[in-house]
Amino acid sequence: MRTIFTAEMSELRDDLIAMSHLVHTAIANASEALLTENIELAQSVIAADAKLDDLEETVDERCVLLIAQQQPVGLDLRTIIASLRISASLERMGDLAQHIAESARRAYPESAVPATHREIVEGMAAASKQAAAEVAELLETRDLNTAARIVSDDDTLDDLHTRAYASLLADDYDGDAQTTLDIALMARYYERFGDHAVGVSRRIVYLVTGDHGGEGAKI
Amino acid sequence: MRTIFTAEMSELRDDLIAMSHLVHTAIANASEALLTENIELAQSVIAADAKLDDLEETVDERCVLLIAQQQPVGLDLRTIIASLRISASLERMGDLAQHIAESARRAYPESAVPATHREIVEGMAAASKQAAAEVAELLETRDLNTAARIVSDDDTLDDLHTRAYASLLADDYDGDAQTTLDIALMARYYERFGDHAVGVSRRIVYLVTGDHGGEGAKI
Repeated sequence: MRTIFTAEMSELRDDLIAMSHLVHTAIANASEALLTENIELAQSVIAADAKLDDLEETVDERCVLLIAQQQPVGLDLRTIIASLRISASLERMGDLAQHIAESARRAYPESAVPATHREIVEGMAAASKQAAAEVAELLETRDLNTAARIVSDDDTLDDLHTRAYASLLADDYDGDAQTTLDIALMARYYERFGDHAVGVSRRIVYLVTGDHGGEGAKI
Repeated sequence: MRTIFTAEMSELRDDLIAMSHLVHTAIANASEALLTENIELAQSVIAADAKLDDLEETVDERCVLLIAQQQPVGLDLRTIIASLRISASLERMGDLAQHIAESARRAYPESAVPATHREIVEGMAAASKQAAAEVAELLETRDLNTAARIVSDDDTLDDLHTRAYASLLADDYDGDAQTTLDIALMARYYERFGDHAVGVSRRIVYLVTGDHGGEGAKI
């Protein structure tokens, strides 16, 4: 019985890792599509999101069955409940990558990123891709240093989000409403992406250390 | 044993209903603060959000304990897992109401809503308040007609969101970047609020009928 349980917990973990790799690919490709006006790549991100939705459903069903059949307690139970939360965050991160790809597709063949904001968007693209890679690493290794790096990437994303909004409100800004909208929404998508990465990170830290670590760390 | 379990399931349900009433108050007050430049009301929405966060934590802990101590199966287990998801949605709806209150506070003593967009924002305020009231009603009654009305409110919010964005991109629009940002973000907050209301509604429909009802209906 215990062996089956251990194998099933391991499959649950593998599913979450698989989801995190899909999220990493999605955000990397969405950003590249956005910065290089690559509509095929944008389409592929949009099409790939269904796979993440399916995996989320698989994880949810697996969690319900594991609880019902194995009646876990203690850390095992908390791990399963945390997995439900993590799958929801990963699914939402995929949605946000999809929204970024949709911005790229809508603007095509133009760029959705004006030259004035290219540096900020490149910074958000890099920080979010790194955060996604670290989320995958954290799910595999449960290394707390990785968790700390995710929080630091999120700080970068928050700073760039603030800079993006400030630049839209600067006296010398003269973009049209479409550009303002594009930048405002893109900055928000990247910023929310970082929030969800931190959410995943805090749940793992809690499982490893038992420490909630403040706001947003609830299992 | 069964009696204790029934009592605890009933408390879980009461907590969710309490959360839904707080969400209803938050969105109603945030919209009123926004439309009447009432900064005290805006502050009260922002301050009250901590109570929702606490209740979410209570619900989560209650769910984990219920599963660990009572080892529920079947519909009981699915209800508990759905409750975890519903508490997360309600907490997020509270955050969105808080963001709307923050927009009102930032613009004070001016209005964050320009005259050109007042009608749209009033429409979103009304539909989101109604959706919140119906979510509370649905959690109490589990009446499927209420679930259908929530979906219809969300359609209204989606339409108004589309109208808000279209109006920002119309040839005769001449608002400044701050106004464009305010309207774009507010429209998005209300639209996401509606999405979460539908999310709650679908989870309840699934518990009552066993029918997923398509995308987003996963427990």
